[in-house]
Amino acid sequence: MGKVQERKAKLHDRLIDVAEAQIIEGGLSTVKARDLARKAECALGAIYNVFDDINDLVMAVNARTFHKLGEAVSAAVKDAHDEGPNDQLIAMSKAYLGFAAENTDLWRALFDLEMSSESKVPEWYLAELAQLFTHIAHPLARLFPDLPRDELDLMVRALFSSVHGIVLLGLEKRISGVPRPQIEHMIAQVLSQIGK
Amino acid sequence: MGKVQERKAKLHDRLIDVAEAQIIEGGLSTVKARDLARKAECALGAIYNVFDDINDLVMAVNARTFHKLGEAVSAAVKDAHDEGPNDQLIAMSKAYLGFAAENTDLWRALFDLEMSSESKVPEWYLAELAQLFTHIAHPLARLFPDLPRDELDLMVRALFSSVHGIVLLGLEKRISGVPRPQIEHMIAQVLSQIGK
Repeated sequence: MGKVQERKAKLHDRLIDVAEAQIIEGGLSTVKARDLARKAECALGAIYNVFDDINDLVMAVNARTFHKLGEAVSAAVKDAHDEGPNDQLIAMSKAYLGFAAENTDLWRALFDLEMSSESKVPEWYLAELAQLFTHIAHPLARLFPDLPRDELDLMVRALFSSVHGIVLLGLEKRISGVPRPQIEHMIAQVLSQIGK
Repeated sequence: MGKVQERKAKLHDRLIDVAEAQIIEGGLSTVKARDLARKAECALGAIYNVFDDINDLVMAVNARTFHKLGEAVSAAVKDAHDEGPNDQLIAMSKAYLGFAAENTDLWRALFDLEMSSESKVPEWYLAELAQLFTHIAHPLARLFPDLPRDELDLMVRALFSSVHGIVLLGLEKRISGVPRPQIEHMIAQVLSQIGK
C-alpha cells in the first residue's frame, strides 16, 4: 500500500473512531462534519476523500456496531447451547437487550440512520441481519418443525421485531420505560408462549 | 370568552392544524417555527403566546393523533366483540397497523418527540395510553384468568411493544420492511401463540 493509500486508510479509521465517540457522547443527531474534522485533525474536505458523505461514515460506524451486536448474540447462543428453544430465544433476546442498554446511542443509530437515509442498503448490513436471523431461526425450527420455510422466515422477523419493540420502548426512559429486569421479564413473557 | 382570549384560542387551533399538516407533509423534523408562523399568518412571537415552545405545540398535535389512534383501536375492539381473545388482540393490532400505515408521520411523531423531549409526560398522554392498555388487558385477562394483576399489566406492555415493533420495522421501507399483508400475518403469528 502506497503512502497516500496508507494515510487515507488511517484517516478512514480515525474518522470512524471519532464519529463513534460522538454518537456515544451525544447521539446521532450531534454528528457534524466540522466537529469530526476538528477531532480527527483533518481538513473538512478530507472527510470526503475517504467517505461519500457523513451518512456513509455513520454507516461505517453502524457496520462496527452491528458486528459487535452480532458477536454478543452469538455468544449468548453458544452459552444457551443445551437449553430448550424458548430459553435459547430468551437468552439471545437478553443479549440483545444488554447490548442495546449498554450501547443505546450506537444501537439507536443502527435504526435511526436507516429511517432517515434513502441510500441503498449495503451488502454487509444484509449479511449481518441474515446472520442474526439465522440465530433466531434455529430454535424456532425446533419449535415448529413442520412450518414451511417462508412461514418460518416471516416468524423470525416477527419475533425479532417483537423483541426489538420491547427493548426500544422499555429503554425509552419516559412513558413506557420500565426497569431492565422488567424488560427481561416482558421478553420472557412473550417468548415463553411461542410454540406452547 | 373575551375578544383577546377568542383570538388566542383561534390561533391555538390554527397552529395545531398547520403543524399537523407540516408533519404529514414532511415529518416531525421539518416543523419550524418560522414556517408555522407564516402558514398560520401570525407573527413568530405570537406562537409563544399560545404555546410554551414548538415541542409544546407538537405535543398538542400528538394529543390529537393519539386520540384518533385510540378511536381506531376502540372501533376494532367493538367489531371483534364476539371473537376469541387472540382474535380480539389481532383485530386491535391490525387497527394499530392500519392507523400507523395511513398516518405514518403523525404516528412516528408520537414516539419520536418523546424520545427527543425531556419534558414531563402530560396527563392526557398517560390517560390515552392507559385507555389503550385497558383494551389489551381485557382479552389478555381472559387468556390468563389466574395471572396476578402486576404480571398482567407487564404482559399488556410486552404485547403492545411487540406489536409496535412489528409495525415499526414492518413499515420501515428498507431492510426489514415487508408488504402490509405480511405485517398483518406476522402480528397474527405472534399473537395467536399467546395463551395457547
